[in-house]
Amino acid sequence: MEKKIITISREFGSGGRTIGRLVAEKLGIPFYDKELVKQISIESGFAPNFVEENGEHAPGRSFFAYAFAPQGVPGIMNGLSTNDFLWNIQCSVILQIADEGPCVIVGRNADYILKDREDVLHVFIHADDEFRKDRIVKLYGQSEKSPSARVAEKDKRRRVNYQHYTGRNWGDAQNFDLCLDSSKLGVEACADIIVDIVKRYQK
Amino acid sequence: MEKKIITISREFGSGGRTIGRLVAEKLGIPFYDKELVKQISIESGFAPNFVEENGEHAPGRSFFAYAFAPQGVPGIMNGLSTNDFLWNIQCSVILQIADEGPCVIVGRNADYILKDREDVLHVFIHADDEFRKDRIVKLYGQSEKSPSARVAEKDKRRRVNYQHYTGRNWGDAQNFDLCLDSSKLGVEACADIIVDIVKRYQK
Repeated sequence: MEKKIITISREFGSGGRTIGRLVAEKLGIPFYDKELVKQISIESGFAPNFVEENGEHAPGRSFFAYAFAPQGVPGIMNGLSTNDFLWNIQCSVILQIADEGPCVIVGRNADYILKDREDVLHVFIHADDEFRKDRIVKLYGQSEKSPSARVAEKDKRRRVNYQHYTGRNWGDAQNFDLCLDSSKLGVEACADIIVDIVKRYQK
Repeated sequence: MEKKIITISREFGSGGRTIGRLVAEKLGIPFYDKELVKQISIESGFAPNFVEENGEHAPGRSFFAYAFAPQGVPGIMNGLSTNDFLWNIQCSVILQIADEGPCVIVGRNADYILKDREDVLHVFIHADDEFRKDRIVKLYGQSEKSPSARVAEKDKRRRVNYQHYTGRNWGDAQNFDLCLDSSKLGVEACADIIVDIVKRYQK
C-alpha cells in the first residue's frame, strides 16, 4: 500500500530531524517539525518553547508547568494535567495534519498517534553514542553539561514520555516499519533509503 | 564501508529465513542456515536436531541436555554446561565462516558474535502476530498447540537465549543497522531493500 505519510522517531543526536527534512525535500512534501510545535502552540495557548520542551518529555511536572499556562487555560483544561492537556492537543493536531495529505512528521510520538493508518511509514532513527555526542556538540555547541549527560538526560525524558503516553518501550523495533542506524549507514544514505522505500510502494 | 556479510536475526514466523535465502540468491553469495547447524554439529559432536533446538534457545537445561551429549563430549566440555559448550562452538564456527568471505547468516546470535566487524550489515526482521501465526501454519502445518502458543513459546526461548549470551534485549532497534517489518513491507520487498542497501555500499 502507498505510504503517503512518514513519521520519524529519533534518538537525540542521531540526525533524525535532518533525515526527515531531506526526505520531505526529495519527495516534495511538507515537513512538520518546528511547524508542528507552532500549530500545537496556537491550539493549546502554550508558548512554542514550552510545547517544544514538554511535547516529548516526561510528564508529571504539572505544578511547575501550571505556572507557565496561558491565561484562561486552567479553565479549559478540565482538570487535566498540563502534560495530558498538551498530549490531547498534540494528538488532534497530528491526526488533522495527516488528513490533509502527504507529509513527513518528526517526533512527538506521531508513530503511535497514527498507528491505525495504513498509509503511513513509521521510521525510527538511532545511532551509537559517540556519533550522537559528536553531533550535538557540532550542532548545538558545548554546554555546562557533558555531551554524555545531555544525551542520557534527553534519552531518559523521551523514553519516559513515550512509555507513559503509548504504553510501549522506546526503541523497540516492533513499533516501526523501518529502523535505521544513521551512525552506521550515514545520514544522507538513510534519507535515500527511506525515499527509495516510499517510491517502491508508489509503483 | 562495504557490507560483505549480512546477519539476519528474526522473529519466528516473520519470514526472516526466506528473506535471507532471497538476499543470498540475489547477491550470489553463500547462505548459512541449515549449513550452519551442520557445521556446528560436526564441530560439537551433537546431533543436528539438538543443535537446531538449542543453538537459539534458552540455556539452563543442562541436565536434560547431557543425556544427548555425544560420546566423549563430557570430557571435552571441561565443566561447561551443554549450552555454554554449544555457544562456544557456535561462536567459533560463525567467526570462521565470516573470515571465509561474503555470506548471509540467519539467526544464532550472529549479530552479536560479529558485532566488532565493520563489514557486516546487521538486520532484524519482525512482523505482527497475525502475519506470523498465519505463516507458521502455512509453512509448518497445524500442531497440538495453538499458533499463538507456538509463537509465544519460541519468542520467549529466543529472547532468553539472546539476553543470556549477549546481555542485550531481544528486538532493541539499537542492536541492528536495519530493522524491517515484513508484515507491513512484504517478504520479497524486504529482500530487495536489503540488497539495495548492500549494493549502495559497494559503489
